[in-house]
Amino acid sequence: MTNKLPNWLNAKGHQNDIVISSRVRLARNIDEYMFPRNMTRLEKEKLLESLKDIIETPEFNQELGKMTLIRLEEATPIERQYLLEKHLISPDMLEKYPSTGIVLGLDESISILVNEEDHLRIQSFFSGLNLEDAYIIADKIDDVLEKFYQYSYHEQYGYLTSCPSNVGTGIRFSVMMHLPALAMNGGLEKISQGLKKEGFVIRGFFGEGSKAYGDLYQISNQFTIGVKETEIMLSLNSKINDIIELEKESRSKLFLEQELHIKDMIFRAYGNLKYALILSAKEGMNDISLLRLGLERGMKFDQDLSYQQLNNLIVLAQPAGLQKYFAKTMEPEERDGKRPQLFQEILKIGGNK
Amino acid sequence: MTNKLPNWLNAKGHQNDIVISSRVRLARNIDEYMFPRNMTRLEKEKLLESLKDIIETPEFNQELGKMTLIRLEEATPIERQYLLEKHLISPDMLEKYPSTGIVLGLDESISILVNEEDHLRIQSFFSGLNLEDAYIIADKIDDVLEKFYQYSYHEQYGYLTSCPSNVGTGIRFSVMMHLPALAMNGGLEKISQGLKKEGFVIRGFFGEGSKAYGDLYQISNQFTIGVKETEIMLSLNSKINDIIELEKESRSKLFLEQELHIKDMIFRAYGNLKYALILSAKEGMNDISLLRLGLERGMKFDQDLSYQQLNNLIVLAQPAGLQKYFAKTMEPEERDGKRPQLFQEILKIGGNK
Repeated sequence: MTNKLPNWLNAKGHQNDIVISSRVRLARNIDEYMFPRNMTRLEKEKLLESLKDIIETPEFNQELGKMTLIRLEEATPIERQYLLEKHLISPDMLEKYPSTGIVLGLDESISILVNEEDHLRIQSFFSGLNLEDAYIIADKIDDVLEKFYQYSYHEQYGYLTSCPSNVGTGIRFSVMMHLPALAMNGGLEKISQGLKKEGFVIRGFFGEGSKAYGDLYQISNQFTIGVKETEIMLSLNSKINDIIELEKESRSKLFLEQELHIKDMIFRAYGNLKYALILSAKEGMNDISLLRLGLERGMKFDQDLSYQQLNNLIVLAQPAGLQKYFAKTMEPEERDGKRPQLFQEILKIGGNK
Repeated sequence: MTNKLPNWLNAKGHQNDIVISSRVRLARNIDEYMFPRNMTRLEKEKLLESLKDIIETPEFNQELGKMTLIRLEEATPIERQYLLEKHLISPDMLEKYPSTGIVLGLDESISILVNEEDHLRIQSFFSGLNLEDAYIIADKIDDVLEKFYQYSYHEQYGYLTSCPSNVGTGIRFSVMMHLPALAMNGGLEKISQGLKKEGFVIRGFFGEGSKAYGDLYQISNQFTIGVKETEIMLSLNSKINDIIELEKESRSKLFLEQELHIKDMIFRAYGNLKYALILSAKEGMNDISLLRLGLERGMKFDQDLSYQQLNNLIVLAQPAGLQKYFAKTMEPEERDGKRPQLFQEILKIGGNK
């Protein structure tokens, strides 16, 4: 079981100051099996076994490199939780994990969920704004798998899926963005309404409601039928670029009109992370959001900070991420007492103790 | 007009970890004048003039050293406010300053208010717990002045004063204490009730209500009639020692039962003062209170802190103190933006700006 951080946190992609990552997911089902909800355990195991064989074929390896199947029931609860925190599996899979699995590429930028809501969910992540490459890679995985399986496909409707909302292309594009200024000035409300009208949806990456903690938001398409993949992609890409512009304008306005106030918040966040002895994931994420904003605005700190450090903390600050980092099982209270050390080590800061 | 900080902040007295200062005040009136509220401006000026002459006599100087008369109407509003913040004049005098004055000793540990509620209010401050020396000095000033004036004195009642509550010895002992643990655990409520029964009163040094900001409290006697000065003094001294014990026990308990939580608060206060760009006097005082507590509990900070630095900030953090420190008139908002620099300079800390 891998401890490493996914490649899409590395902050090496386009527009990394505002876009954390881009993701494409394809939902596919296989003709010879019932939909997962109607499959027996035996059939699910059979599908898992067939995947295990496929990923070891030269044909597969030549195209997609070395990938590993992880059976979720062989993973510990913390390992499953960590996969969830890295957004590799769905929350559902924390409970319905028997006879499910994930096929993971070496750098975790590609993966295939097996026996989740659909038989196969092909996933491709890229750092920054890069839906096109994410789509190309997902499409490639799709092509390779199609050599081994007969997909459930309907001439008129397209790919058939468990949930009608995925029927058609079965594709979901998602972009994770850092939008602190639009969250502060209330601009997200209007953006959300505009996106909805065109078939897109914006959701907090952490927490529910309009003010997601850490100011991280995921924007994705809601519908997959009746439109070509590339059309959805281009349309979403254009929306994302609009939001980037709005966020940048909001940041400029914020720093123009309330410079001292916002810098005060940002420096205090730095002080908090440097000196706190108890830190919740939520508070940590909110501080990271402020530091990210300060970094983008050219603010200097006692220690230089990088987007990569800050991105890594998005995952590591979570309950399982923290426990994996320290290789130790901890109860919530103990985690809050250990989290400052994580932040201080990753950011290379740390005050008097 | 002096810019310097009063000597009683120097943290060189007894029990300085918990007691900031001890103060004695004697209310005296002079037979040949009406009580101040009935005096004409001319009479008040006559009294001020007589004081001015007295403090220049060899007899006075030999006993009490060099003292200076400041006429409050010749001082600026900020200077009057600063005298109030140093607890040298009363809040009343900010408005009713015409023809009032204060005779100040070089280190501001002794002073005489003129034409306040009574003709003369002799004041003596000492650092730490030292009511006895404060009383000896006040008594000495009293003796010296009595050579020049005939006090209003009644065989049966004692010294006569404007307000009946001061009739008798005319003495008020006050001790300023730092009681963060008793403020946190609610112990002050019981202490307040106990003190009241024995004729003492506890008040927040800043702000009203039971939770004074900065956790600074003044304890003083309410009555001055029918008891000898030394009896009041010994009784108050014994109460103060009891409260010191209770505070220390509360601190030990706090650090035993909630060590991580309280240290987290204290280190965060340090981080706040180091990195904030906007700081209210109230927030600053609350952070100072936590650092004072940490210092007493042996906590180490990136920069060594001293009680004297922390005490000085009690006065300098206030509106006039801050403006005197920077020798600049500032509106409230500007002060909040300048206050972090004051704290960082006094404490010799200061983060990235």
